[in-house]
Amino acid sequence: MEDALLGQLDGMVRDKGYPNRSEAIRDLVRKTIVDDEWDDTSGEIIGVLVIVFDHHRRELSSRLLKKEHDWEGSILSTLHLHLDHDNCLEVKVIRGKAGEVRDFAEELISMKGIKYGTLVRATSGGSL
Amino acid sequence: MEDALLGQLDGMVRDKGYPNRSEAIRDLVRKTIVDDEWDDTSGEIIGVLVIVFDHHRRELSSRLLKKEHDWEGSILSTLHLHLDHDNCLEVKVIRGKAGEVRDFAEELISMKGIKYGTLVRATSGGSL
Amino acid sequence: MEDALLGQLDGMVRDKGYPNRSEAIRDLVRKTIVDDEWDDTSGEIIGVLVIVFDHHRRELSSRLLKKEHDWEGSILSTLHLHLDHDNCLEVKVIRGKAGEVRDFAEELISMKGIKYGTLVRATSGGSL
Amino acid sequence: MEDALLGQLDGMVRDKGYPNRSEAIRDLVRKTIVDDEWDDTSGEIIGVLVIVFDHHRRELSSRLLKKEHDWEGSILSTLHLHLDHDNCLEVKVIRGKAGEVRDFAEELISMKGIKYGTLVRATSGGSL
Repeated sequence: MEDALLGQLDGMVRDKGYPNRSEAIRDLVRKTIVDDEWDDTSGEIIGVLVIVFDHHRRELSSRLLKKEHDWEGSILSTLHLHLDHDNCLEVKVIRGKAGEVRDFAEELISMKGIKYGTLVRATSGGSL
Repeated sequence: MEDALLGQLDGMVRDKGYPNRSEAIRDLVRKTIVDDEWDDTSGEIIGVLVIVFDHHRRELSSRLLKKEHDWEGSILSTLHLHLDHDNCLEVKVIRGKAGEVRDFAEELISMKGIKYGTLVRATSGGSL
Repeated sequence: MEDALLGQLDGMVRDKGYPNRSEAIRDLVRKTIVDDEWDDTSGEIIGVLVIVFDHHRRELSSRLLKKEHDWEGSILSTLHLHLDHDNCLEVKVIRGKAGEVRDFAEELISMKGIKYGTLVRATSGGSL
Repeated sequence: MEDALLGQLDGMVRDKGYPNRSEAIRDLVRKTIVDDEWDDTSGEIIGVLVIVFDHHRRELSSRLLKKEHDWEGSILSTLHLHLDHDNCLEVKVIRGKAGEVRDFAEELISMKGIKYGTLVRATSGGSL
């Protein structure tokens, strides 16, 4: 590896608190594997959807629930936190084909009343 | 301790899989302490509320959320599981004064559309 | 129904905040159905296990995880809350045959280091 | 707005399923606000940390718990899922100053035995 690249790697080890270079490289490789799992739209992945919304929005949570129960895929679990008098945060762990999970997440995120939403690429860990 | 009582204690040790009598007795004492915490309606406790409902019931989840955000007490977290196409299970961890937590739980459980509900007496563990 | 019993029913309606007698009676019937599901040890039920423990107890959480992964039944989800510097509360939603869920819960509750534990009878709601 | 940019915006509306341009633009603005909250390292934010690990790794979960209880910040709730016989997924909702949450997340992600980890920028929603 060239010096410049090595320098950047060492910076990453230092900044992120890795015990050594190997551990940092291992993490980079794993991230690539997970990205590949997601690029294969028919492979099974785990996605984590984070949304923030104002529960006063008319029937938003009932509409969310309906969409979720109607979906053919599998929402393993939802964690719901009341952030303040108005705002809720929900984290949904979803298992399914990458393409379908992405479509479903985008459908929820684009609903009226959802203030913020992100889909996190996770993995069932089997390939790591 | 009389023989009869000792016999029952040993039965409990065997049935519940305790490693020995002391561990079983310790558990009994702890349960009494938690019950006492709950009987003191002004003391702070942790309650775990379990409810099952059909999400098709008109706006039930939106009405639930509204009641929760309006409540003055503290719902630390809610876990939501889709059991099947119709039924949801929610577990709410609540911190507050025993009397207020009980009133709030009963208010939710008695809502139209809630199929099943139980409030579990738990504890913040500090006194155990 | 005799007057005395009716009086007690009305007291229950008032104390628990039910909108009317029918809703209270409906709840009583449902509780009996859930109890029956649990008495049939081979029927499938949903159990909610609540435990409180001190995370300083040597490797307790690692031993818990091992037992859980080794178990043949299905732990749908665990919610973990840090109550204070020492104490953790975990809520586990478990699906399985009533007898097996009960045995598994008792095995966990009786572990050294678990301060408090209760298994709540819940239901998948299908029969209600 | 130039045509090219407008074309890209319309593509985004179509791909992500937004009802119209305004809703899509609103989302872009909100994402920028959340990013700004995170760039101000002393402002309070909500982070969602997703990690995947093999629970067989010696005492990993006990070491994780110790780090979490020792941390001065606030882990609001953890959701734990057993993905298969070996792998666990944990989602932690964390409230704190952006800089401290990021440091803490990196410390956990870089631990030996963690296969995969990502910190998601979320928000308490107050500014949206």
